[in-house]
Amino acid sequence: MEQIDLIIAARWILPVEPENATLDHHALVVHEGVIRAILPAEEASEKYTATTRIDRPDHVLIPGLVNAHTHSAMSLFRGMADDLPLAEWLEQHIWPAEGRWASNQFVRDGAELAILEMLQGGTTCFNDMYFFPDTVAGLAVEYGMRISAGMIVIEHPTVWAQEPSEYLSKGLAIHDQYQDHSLVRTCFAPHAPYTVSDETLNRIRVLSDELDVPIHMHVHETAYEIEMSMKEHGCRPLDRLDRLGLINPQLMAVHMTQLDDGEIQLLADRGAHVIHCPESNMKLASGHCPVTALLAAGVNVALGTDSAASNNDLDMFGEMRTAALLAKSVTGDATAVPANAALAMATINGARALGRAKETGSLVAGKLADIVCVDLNKPACQPVHHPASQLVYSASRDQVTDVWIGGRQIVAQGKVTTGDEAEVLERAAAWHRRLADDE
Amino acid sequence: MEQIDLIIAARWILPVEPENATLDHHALVVHEGVIRAILPAEEASEKYTATTRIDRPDHVLIPGLVNAHTHSAMSLFRGMADDLPLAEWLEQHIWPAEGRWASNQFVRDGAELAILEMLQGGTTCFNDMYFFPDTVAGLAVEYGMRISAGMIVIEHPTVWAQEPSEYLSKGLAIHDQYQDHSLVRTCFAPHAPYTVSDETLNRIRVLSDELDVPIHMHVHETAYEIEMSMKEHGCRPLDRLDRLGLINPQLMAVHMTQLDDGEIQLLADRGAHVIHCPESNMKLASGHCPVTALLAAGVNVALGTDSAASNNDLDMFGEMRTAALLAKSVTGDATAVPANAALAMATINGARALGRAKETGSLVAGKLADIVCVDLNKPACQPVHHPASQLVYSASRDQVTDVWIGGRQIVAQGKVTTGDEAEVLERAAAWHRRLADDE
Repeated sequence: MEQIDLIIAARWILPVEPENATLDHHALVVHEGVIRAILPAEEASEKYTATTRIDRPDHVLIPGLVNAHTHSAMSLFRGMADDLPLAEWLEQHIWPAEGRWASNQFVRDGAELAILEMLQGGTTCFNDMYFFPDTVAGLAVEYGMRISAGMIVIEHPTVWAQEPSEYLSKGLAIHDQYQDHSLVRTCFAPHAPYTVSDETLNRIRVLSDELDVPIHMHVHETAYEIEMSMKEHGCRPLDRLDRLGLINPQLMAVHMTQLDDGEIQLLADRGAHVIHCPESNMKLASGHCPVTALLAAGVNVALGTDSAASNNDLDMFGEMRTAALLAKSVTGDATAVPANAALAMATINGARALGRAKETGSLVAGKLADIVCVDLNKPACQPVHHPASQLVYSASRDQVTDVWIGGRQIVAQGKVTTGDEAEVLERAAAWHRRLADDE
Repeated sequence: MEQIDLIIAARWILPVEPENATLDHHALVVHEGVIRAILPAEEASEKYTATTRIDRPDHVLIPGLVNAHTHSAMSLFRGMADDLPLAEWLEQHIWPAEGRWASNQFVRDGAELAILEMLQGGTTCFNDMYFFPDTVAGLAVEYGMRISAGMIVIEHPTVWAQEPSEYLSKGLAIHDQYQDHSLVRTCFAPHAPYTVSDETLNRIRVLSDELDVPIHMHVHETAYEIEMSMKEHGCRPLDRLDRLGLINPQLMAVHMTQLDDGEIQLLADRGAHVIHCPESNMKLASGHCPVTALLAAGVNVALGTDSAASNNDLDMFGEMRTAALLAKSVTGDATAVPANAALAMATINGARALGRAKETGSLVAGKLADIVCVDLNKPACQPVHHPASQLVYSASRDQVTDVWIGGRQIVAQGKVTTGDEAEVLERAAAWHRRLADDE
């Protein structure tokens, strides 16, 4: 009998790799933060002696969910200005509020709220883009959560930096600081083609190559963005990025609601990743990312919630469901994005896009133990004919009972163990009072 | 000081009538099952002495949600056959399973599971269509829930009846039995234009007029249905129903994904109601109900989940969100179906469609006290800038803490007080084993 740290046995395990697998009455064996084995529960009991053994008889274990695009601090703007067109929403509400309020303290309080929400909802890794990414990275470490911190770059001055060099040097300082930290990775995060110059994008491409760091960028979010680019640059934004050498396996292109067949093929040929944010795109009426065509072409498509200002939550269960339903709806094909494909988009595809597939995104031996346990013994999820169907089409974020990240239990009985929820909620409510007084 | 049964004070009340109102620090005063008053909490304390006083400082009170279209017993088929085209789903999975399994006991166990799920999720009234409606009506009464029981009619024989006269006589017996019961109303429920003959529809129209009872029917669910009708009858189903005199204020036409401008105007002119089931339509790739155009024309549009076999849950919070997001997405207009409109569709519009707007659907003095309390002090819902936004775009069914129906508390601390959840879940799990053995 081998002595190990942890055995988690459950009614079902959906490891995501191999594709579409459902394991009945299996166990995950975890030692020193790493998945040692995944095998029938009975066999696990025969082979291993565990310091901690956990049994979840009505539950399904899945890999930690990867939120591949968010702006966590913006949770403080949740529901502040809904049901408005994108331009009015941004120009009359979000940007003025950011100009007035987006301080380091705002980012800390907003990101902490977001981290609590994400952890409770089974998200173990998030790809963030906002000001003060150092603050958000520090919080993720405090909470024991994985982050890909965006080294944000915008051509114009903001509260975070004055000009591209300063953005880059501040970002690279974070990259250096966390070089050896298992929870934190970094991405270059040029905001969008329309807010970053060719010169700066060139510099980012060179740095991305040198440092082997991904690039996280909003691309083709709306038809208006394409029109503007045609006027200003005489070409579509993707053409411009292509000329700058940016369409490559480091690129995470977020939104992509405007794509022609040639562009889909280009993305496939170059191995670029697409981050699909269906709820944000629907809420802002931005258009549809052609997910089914992208997947058919072999493009890796991951899922993101976008910020709670345009979603209005950071719920990857909801996002999986919406992705599956929307794909069927826009193609008129009920077989589009089946449940297992939605689950893969929310896990392994996100890990691949972030360049973190060796560490997370599926439950296989050798990967870090990022594990989520979901209780299916609820009226909304019984009977369980196919656990993947229940996860995607009927389970809610509130059915997450446990979350482990790198083998450390971060959520137990639905509560985050590494922070004080009441304090975080009180700080969020205080921000409401501040913002409301300002109106 | 007047002595009354119950005061419920909350941080916010969204009464739905008047339209778009948000009341801060108000209370609902309830006596003998009826809303006596809705007024500032301080005033309530001065005017009334309550046998029971409940304070919900971080919560919002809304009218009980009305699920205007479901087949509750089909919850036992939840997730049994997903990600399939409608025809294959129905013909190769649902219909054979119904033929094999849809007994009175199946309906009892399935409907009880559905009732638990709906109550926990804040639904206080449902419009049901399935076999053994007497059984479902009896269960609703046991649980203290409002039902509009469908007097189902299909031209062909099923487990419930052999031919139209028998369907009608069995249905009318239920109508008579519950004539004076405040929880139970009935609707004629001819399944669809393609499964019921002109002769039977004529008879139903006459009975509906005589008895003042609504008619609940699937209409224009798919393009295929229109094609078939053109072949068989030489006209679209709505034309046929119009010739039969069925397009009138008693009609609840469910789905309606195929509508031209003339048909939208016809529905408006005649005061017919449309029941929108966005998640089911998306999942089965049936098309989009033109909700924005219908509302603009003045048609009353209510919301239904459809059954858990095609949704896969009975969650009206999810349905409100999907209705709001889908409307924006298909119109390209981010202002379509704002949060308050989605809430109205899930409450007062449903009550109107069912002919029950005098008793339920909004929180106004004189109506029955059908009240739902939702806790917004959760990481996914803070800060609260606008409670209607939080309800529609970020709250989940699991945040429902209390439900009162006719002043009686049916859900407390998220648990149904009138049934045994563990038993119901065990019976549902047993149905999984039976259905799985059969595969």
